[in-house]
Amino acid sequence: MAAHLPVDGVMAPWSKRLEARPALELADSCLRGVGQVVFMNNPVTGLLILAGLTVASAWLGLATALGAVAATLTALALGFDRTAVRAGLFGFNGALCGAGLATFFAPQLSADGMVWIVVVAAFSTVITATLARILVPTFGVPGLTLPFNLATLTFLLAAFAFASDELALAADPALPALGQAVDTTLRAEMDGSGASAAGAVLNALLRGVGQVFLADSAIAGLLIVAGITVCSRIAAGFALVGSLVGLLVALAVGADGFAAYHGLWAYNSVLCAIAVGGVFFVLTWRSALAAVACAAAGALLFAAVGTLLAPLGLPGLTLAFCLATLAFLLIKDDTPRLQPVDLSEVTTPEAHRYAARPPAGAPTGRDPRVGGNSPS
Amino acid sequence: MAAHLPVDGVMAPWSKRLEARPALELADSCLRGVGQVVFMNNPVTGLLILAGLTVASAWLGLATALGAVAATLTALALGFDRTAVRAGLFGFNGALCGAGLATFFAPQLSADGMVWIVVVAAFSTVITATLARILVPTFGVPGLTLPFNLATLTFLLAAFAFASDELALAADPALPALGQAVDTTLRAEMDGSGASAAGAVLNALLRGVGQVFLADSAIAGLLIVAGITVCSRIAAGFALVGSLVGLLVALAVGADGFAAYHGLWAYNSVLCAIAVGGVFFVLTWRSALAAVACAAAGALLFAAVGTLLAPLGLPGLTLAFCLATLAFLLIKDDTPRLQPVDLSEVTTPEAHRYAARPPAGAPTGRDPRVGGNSPS
Amino acid sequence: MAAHLPVDGVMAPWSKRLEARPALELADSCLRGVGQVVFMNNPVTGLLILAGLTVASAWLGLATALGAVAATLTALALGFDRTAVRAGLFGFNGALCGAGLATFFAPQLSADGMVWIVVVAAFSTVITATLARILVPTFGVPGLTLPFNLATLTFLLAAFAFASDELALAADPALPALGQAVDTTLRAEMDGSGASAAGAVLNALLRGVGQVFLADSAIAGLLIVAGITVCSRIAAGFALVGSLVGLLVALAVGADGFAAYHGLWAYNSVLCAIAVGGVFFVLTWRSALAAVACAAAGALLFAAVGTLLAPLGLPGLTLAFCLATLAFLLIKDDTPRLQPVDLSEVTTPEAHRYAARPPAGAPTGRDPRVGGNSPS
Repeated sequence: MAAHLPVDGVMAPWSKRLEARPALELADSCLRGVGQVVFMNNPVTGLLILAGLTVASAWLGLATALGAVAATLTALALGFDRTAVRAGLFGFNGALCGAGLATFFAPQLSADGMVWIVVVAAFSTVITATLARILVPTFGVPGLTLPFNLATLTFLLAAFAFASDELALAADPALPALGQAVDTTLRAEMDGSGASAAGAVLNALLRGVGQVFLADSAIAGLLIVAGITVCSRIAAGFALVGSLVGLLVALAVGADGFAAYHGLWAYNSVLCAIAVGGVFFVLTWRSALAAVACAAAGALLFAAVGTLLAPLGLPGLTLAFCLATLAFLLIKDDTPRLQPVDLSEVTTPEAHRYAARPPAGAPTGRDPRVGGNSPS
Repeated sequence: MAAHLPVDGVMAPWSKRLEARPALELADSCLRGVGQVVFMNNPVTGLLILAGLTVASAWLGLATALGAVAATLTALALGFDRTAVRAGLFGFNGALCGAGLATFFAPQLSADGMVWIVVVAAFSTVITATLARILVPTFGVPGLTLPFNLATLTFLLAAFAFASDELALAADPALPALGQAVDTTLRAEMDGSGASAAGAVLNALLRGVGQVFLADSAIAGLLIVAGITVCSRIAAGFALVGSLVGLLVALAVGADGFAAYHGLWAYNSVLCAIAVGGVFFVLTWRSALAAVACAAAGALLFAAVGTLLAPLGLPGLTLAFCLATLAFLLIKDDTPRLQPVDLSEVTTPEAHRYAARPPAGAPTGRDPRVGGNSPS
Repeated sequence: MAAHLPVDGVMAPWSKRLEARPALELADSCLRGVGQVVFMNNPVTGLLILAGLTVASAWLGLATALGAVAATLTALALGFDRTAVRAGLFGFNGALCGAGLATFFAPQLSADGMVWIVVVAAFSTVITATLARILVPTFGVPGLTLPFNLATLTFLLAAFAFASDELALAADPALPALGQAVDTTLRAEMDGSGASAAGAVLNALLRGVGQVFLADSAIAGLLIVAGITVCSRIAAGFALVGSLVGLLVALAVGADGFAAYHGLWAYNSVLCAIAVGGVFFVLTWRSALAAVACAAAGALLFAAVGTLLAPLGLPGLTLAFCLATLAFLLIKDDTPRLQPVDLSEVTTPEAHRYAARPPAGAPTGRDPRVGGNSPS
């Protein structure tokens, strides 16, 4: 059975088998949506990610799933492109909206919180379609997680005007401060001492992956890496490379060691590295170098966005990832040394490498497209 | 006479009759400009709106008219498209600049105030052409009142650096505040008690329409609704629907009842509802629902823009309307269930419905295009 | 020799002679990059500008040269368009990044400062390519100095999070203040008395030109004007006209006389006037008027951008120039009364006038294209 329905790649045969079962198809679309946050069009990836989030916090896992379902159902109700819905492309921003509101607006399970997650996730679906109209035909780049950033930041800004006694907003407006003494030691507690070097670095690496979904947990990070590995080993490798680059940038510039330990300098870099190192460019040594450069830019932009939003007291979410990656995607035709993947043909890094092989001669190794191609 | 020169629709025969009289033609263009703030290409609408504003404040009425004239003359001087000038499309942003400066910069009639209204309104005409170049050919959407927002906010930002003893700027920079106790009772005074429920709601509904032109007056709102009715009963209905949606959102999220009573949560929603419910989409039950959704989004965005601009102490003007409506316009081709109106064929909601009727069979009712089509 | 290798115009014969000498070619590209800040594709202009900056501050001159070299080498390493590299089009943003960091981040020669200048200048090259992809094909306008503004502001924002004891950031976050008493007398000292009228105006005019490169020095301004004159007398004239317009706007609105004396209201206007008065439009009386209008808009936008960035305590750099000039460039096809120059054919104002002459009859005067055309 596992031979007929492999769980790696984009699991196309699995999608076919679900075609006559709407409820399962919807669940599959939503799980793929969770996976698409890290560019993985694979429901098992989504399941493992949700498991990781639930370990970190049951409410975080529930909120993420709720956001993915609300966003996907909105896309279906509005009659948006079904192929994109099936690939999870209308779910991943909603999933992040759920995680974002569970973190910054309603820190505990509440009816109000769930209603707002549904509203904001549905709003993110409209923004997804809007940004696709602006970015794809004219500039040839995807909207990435910009809909999540725009929908969530807009909602948090609006929430300042709400009468919300029971809902705590994790915002702290203040003018950005300069010349503070910064403790650069990697450490778990704000005013704690440094942990053991190896343990601290491992924690920082895995928490960097977890923070992509707002999960400040090494175990969540580990399960997310496992989930990515199911779909693409290359992507899993770049997730860790990106986390390392973000951490190294933080250490190099002398950033606060508490923020670095908890993965805050790394999560944007995780997404930058996966995106450039195999998803939107065929993996070569040059695109691997570009992935590292993009991850470093993402870490610096994380700090820049943080200062920019300080007067409003809001979190930078994944804006830094979006800006750095869009910059690299926009110049894809200026340099002949990178091989961009056509947006409509994005599947997995392994499949891109296979498709980019020179036609002559017999290909070695197994065809990664056995588990590849678009899912519907 | 009234039979030959009907005042409803876009009054095309009237435009023809003015062709040889430049002064009257200019006045007609400017009045249409005032009407175009609420998408009504009709000089009688403009006259009634100016009357309403003058009732609220003679200076507000004068400043609005001055802005419309300055912006329209600038467009003529720069040789911009005459058909657009005649339809008031270069006047409405200038009209709002006049109203905006009369409200936030020069609260009383003054020579300085009038000079700046001319300068800022002229500037808005350049921005109108600039934005049209960016938005129309590439993305197929209009600039709406963005030129007013950009010109007025830019000027208010610059005015911080002016030596302005006699000119009071209504700005109050402060970090956005959280967790304040909010009095959600609808009320006319900041620290007053609630008015009678019916009276308060009626006041809020009409003030919401008046605030589109910065007029905090129920009578102004009433005259504006009357003005819209002259050109389009559908649009007048949606103006009130939008105002109601904005008010309901304010009540639902527990907003400050003083702001809600004075129409601040509603005026963006008024414009959203008119735009989506008949002007840029043919009126159907689906576009009516979309108009309500857009109006709700506009109310939430009003709150978000307010927080965003709080550190600068500036008003959000109609940015919320622009953002919400542009989002809905950009996805017009993604959902097969809405019938968008081609930008070059926008006239009145009634004419759009008539044009969209199935060709077979005799049309019932009178042809609304008798008073329709483009005015020149 | 001078007859064969004239130093005016874009010095095309000189470029040809360097073709086999990579080191000299690189130096030439970098010097042209410095000149391109003021739209002059001429290495002698670049040399004179660097001399002026070095007179003002040796570190400023060195940092500017370092930025130009880093940005140019990055473009070569990434395989970007060689013709553009040779014309200095990938160097000018890097040169400004160097000047910007030397002014706002590392006020004295330091290893850290030099490393960051290289990083930020390299980053500006990526943004140059990114913005070109967004702006040129779709909207037909150049990115101007936006890459400098984006790279430098992003870096300064990020630097808030650095542990930087020895590096002083010249940032001062504060809410914008209203209704302060302003001393409008032109004066050299913050709390000094006014200088002699003629001397103060001359100082302000030349410092306005110097401030384009962050040089608060009349002598630097004089050398920059001399450098521009080598390539184009028209451009040199408009540099002074722009500086005068910026100064007059400051005096007209009652701005602080200390800021006006030090050229802060003028440097954006200098660039606006050169750009519109001959570089992107053929010089006519109409484009000269447009140049004055654009310079005035640039001065007002300088004040606006300053208020906008006040809560972050960051400098407005040349954002005002970019916004005002882009607005004028975007409407170039809306008004039949201006003659825009095709982006790919921009050389010098003199060459544009020559090329735009009616074909009939013998041209009078010498062909300015002897020293013209693209350099490679």
